[in-house]
Amino acid sequence: MRIVDVIVRKRDGAALTRDEIEFVVSGVTSGALPDYQVSALLMAMLLRGMTAEETAWLTEAMVASGARVDLSSIPGTKVGKHSTGGVGDKTSIIVAPLVAACGVPMPKSSGRGLGHTGGTIDKLESIPGFKVGLDREAFLAAVRDIGCAFVGQTPDIAPADKKLYALRDVTGTVESLPLIASSIMSKKIGEGTDALVLDVKVGRGAFMKSEADARALAEAMVSIGSRVGLTTEAVLTGMDAPLGRAVGNALEIIECFETLKGNGPPALEALCVALAARLVRLGKVEPTLEAAEARVRTVLSSGQALDTLRKVIERQGGDPAVVDDYTRLPRAASVEVITATRDGIVASVDAMAVGRASMALGAGRDRMDASIDPGAGIIVGAQPGDAVTAGRPLFGLHVGRGRSSDEARLLLQEAVTIGDAPVSAPRIVIDVVTQAA
Amino acid sequence: MRIVDVIVRKRDGAALTRDEIEFVVSGVTSGALPDYQVSALLMAMLLRGMTAEETAWLTEAMVASGARVDLSSIPGTKVGKHSTGGVGDKTSIIVAPLVAACGVPMPKSSGRGLGHTGGTIDKLESIPGFKVGLDREAFLAAVRDIGCAFVGQTPDIAPADKKLYALRDVTGTVESLPLIASSIMSKKIGEGTDALVLDVKVGRGAFMKSEADARALAEAMVSIGSRVGLTTEAVLTGMDAPLGRAVGNALEIIECFETLKGNGPPALEALCVALAARLVRLGKVEPTLEAAEARVRTVLSSGQALDTLRKVIERQGGDPAVVDDYTRLPRAASVEVITATRDGIVASVDAMAVGRASMALGAGRDRMDASIDPGAGIIVGAQPGDAVTAGRPLFGLHVGRGRSSDEARLLLQEAVTIGDAPVSAPRIVIDVVTQAA
Repeated sequence: MRIVDVIVRKRDGAALTRDEIEFVVSGVTSGALPDYQVSALLMAMLLRGMTAEETAWLTEAMVASGARVDLSSIPGTKVGKHSTGGVGDKTSIIVAPLVAACGVPMPKSSGRGLGHTGGTIDKLESIPGFKVGLDREAFLAAVRDIGCAFVGQTPDIAPADKKLYALRDVTGTVESLPLIASSIMSKKIGEGTDALVLDVKVGRGAFMKSEADARALAEAMVSIGSRVGLTTEAVLTGMDAPLGRAVGNALEIIECFETLKGNGPPALEALCVALAARLVRLGKVEPTLEAAEARVRTVLSSGQALDTLRKVIERQGGDPAVVDDYTRLPRAASVEVITATRDGIVASVDAMAVGRASMALGAGRDRMDASIDPGAGIIVGAQPGDAVTAGRPLFGLHVGRGRSSDEARLLLQEAVTIGDAPVSAPRIVIDVVTQAA
Repeated sequence: MRIVDVIVRKRDGAALTRDEIEFVVSGVTSGALPDYQVSALLMAMLLRGMTAEETAWLTEAMVASGARVDLSSIPGTKVGKHSTGGVGDKTSIIVAPLVAACGVPMPKSSGRGLGHTGGTIDKLESIPGFKVGLDREAFLAAVRDIGCAFVGQTPDIAPADKKLYALRDVTGTVESLPLIASSIMSKKIGEGTDALVLDVKVGRGAFMKSEADARALAEAMVSIGSRVGLTTEAVLTGMDAPLGRAVGNALEIIECFETLKGNGPPALEALCVALAARLVRLGKVEPTLEAAEARVRTVLSSGQALDTLRKVIERQGGDPAVVDDYTRLPRAASVEVITATRDGIVASVDAMAVGRASMALGAGRDRMDASIDPGAGIIVGAQPGDAVTAGRPLFGLHVGRGRSSDEARLLLQEAVTIGDAPVSAPRIVIDVVTQAA
């Protein structure tokens, strides 16, 4: 087989065969294929598209390029979760303890990622002492004992995806739905769980701006799951405004604790309960979504889920006292406030602008080698639909060490629209895509 | 400017700016741009297309990546010619002496090229002693003194095109009309002539199989010429059957001599006269095409053009006695014959099959480092429209040293169709594309 023939076939719109796709992935993994041929193929894949079959084969080949985690030492049905990412999205840190407290094991692998704040891993690392670099045995033992644990992505899962993603990132070939779907799914399949819930964000603060694009991505991923035998459900959720009030690493950790104490922002709590309920049902400890949701609400209100998170923190080397004493968490160098300039009703809060402001304050990174300030971030004081009066604080700016608030101020002043008409609260769960659908 | 932004713009169907195109070409020339980004851009250019403006900018940037030959030491209007290539196409070796004998200087740069036979340069090198590696001054002096000379392509012309072509060749991005047009035109513009005639072949023995594709390529190249100030005309010519009777290097050289002696196959002579007449008119020594053609026919029948070629051979180190003594040319190891199996009228001779058979006999190369046998090739004994009887030779196979005729025989047995109905002779000149058109 010659790679140039494979490129030409995809260039001319053909569907590739399973052999061709495996040939490409194995050449990428071994390094036998030069990057310049792979990038030409990626551009042809982006512009010509890929069938559901091709996408599933690509995913399976990327999974096979590395190890698949063996979770057999953990009894029960293991579940996983993935979010396509949004501003203020800290759901994993709330959902995993909820699900684990219901008796469903949830080993959670997360990325650091580029973006407005750090990833789940960065957020957890803002807890003094917390270690995400557990070796596999310690990670599995934590899940066995406590029901959940958090670990950074390991290089042995889907190494072909890592190489392909690095190449896509510099060749304008990220924005391909089948390539995005197979990249995400190869990692999640490699993590070895029995079922998966995907939180596909849609809106101006999300990668997918339109509901149609988000639905297509969700369907592509659910289809891959179906073809490779991983039960997968996708929830389309709104990401026009930031999720919750806190954006930033330590700030979001506090919000996770508050939510598990029953004091969370209603939209954040509702989303976490919805995701957790789906995971609990997929984990087969409750037969229906309703029963699963009731059980999730029980472990939330009883404090059992908070207790699970406290145990995870302790097991992973963190200071469990932070759960009740937030002064033990990193703090920003200074806090400033932006206030409303008029009375009215908040029509919108632009998640993307808040995200960029958060990055400008030091909470996120724009390059993998950039450092973040765990105390930096933003407290969002008003959500769409809230009535505000002139002078009321709209944003708390937690300014990172050595940072200026100038750029964040410019961004945030434009981020809120205040009107006079009543506004309905943003939708949380827009739709659900399952294999039966 | 970031290359990834340029890739994304082309990926999304935008027309690039002149600055963007110059940025890319200068990065390719200097090596600053990694191949994997350039190949992704090339694939996006192929699939999204390029405007006439973009194509001209790309061409000009590739010309500017190297030197443009200074022909000012040669008096008069200098003309150039390029053929997109076909089986048995030896017109340059006939046309250049015809044009030069009419008083129009024609410095001819040619490639070696991959294909069924060698390029013009390989054909000329089958003349014992002939050197194509003249230095620039010797080349210019030969054109000044004799009116024409032949030289191999030099690395200082359009080096960006050479790099881009090498990358296109291995990334499935050759078959882009704007990229083909700009590649050809960048080299021809770099050669420094004042006017250019393009012979765009169409048919099953040509790169362009359909008249529509050939016309589009011709129009693209004429448009580039117009935009950069190089008077360019394109002639669409038929390439279903081989051009002339000889396919192979020394065999074609003999046919060139015969044609300049007035004994050439009618179709070959007609095409050479047509191309030469256009060049003579563009060279401004005759005001009309009719007058130019009359002058070309005069230097053909008077032997002046043959004499010009003899002088060129002598000046370039070759043995001028070959013109009258073909035994001084390399010969094949053996000659075999394929005969007609029935009586009838030749309906078609498949140029591509003849070309592949010629390569199998040793006349062409499939890799740039492969060697060719200058004596190898094929004599095509019958043209479409010819009446044949069973047992009459259809092909003479000139088998190269150390080669078997087995593959060529298989190819050639399928190459000729003999029927009963009368067949009109293939079209020679199908159409002409000029800037006024």
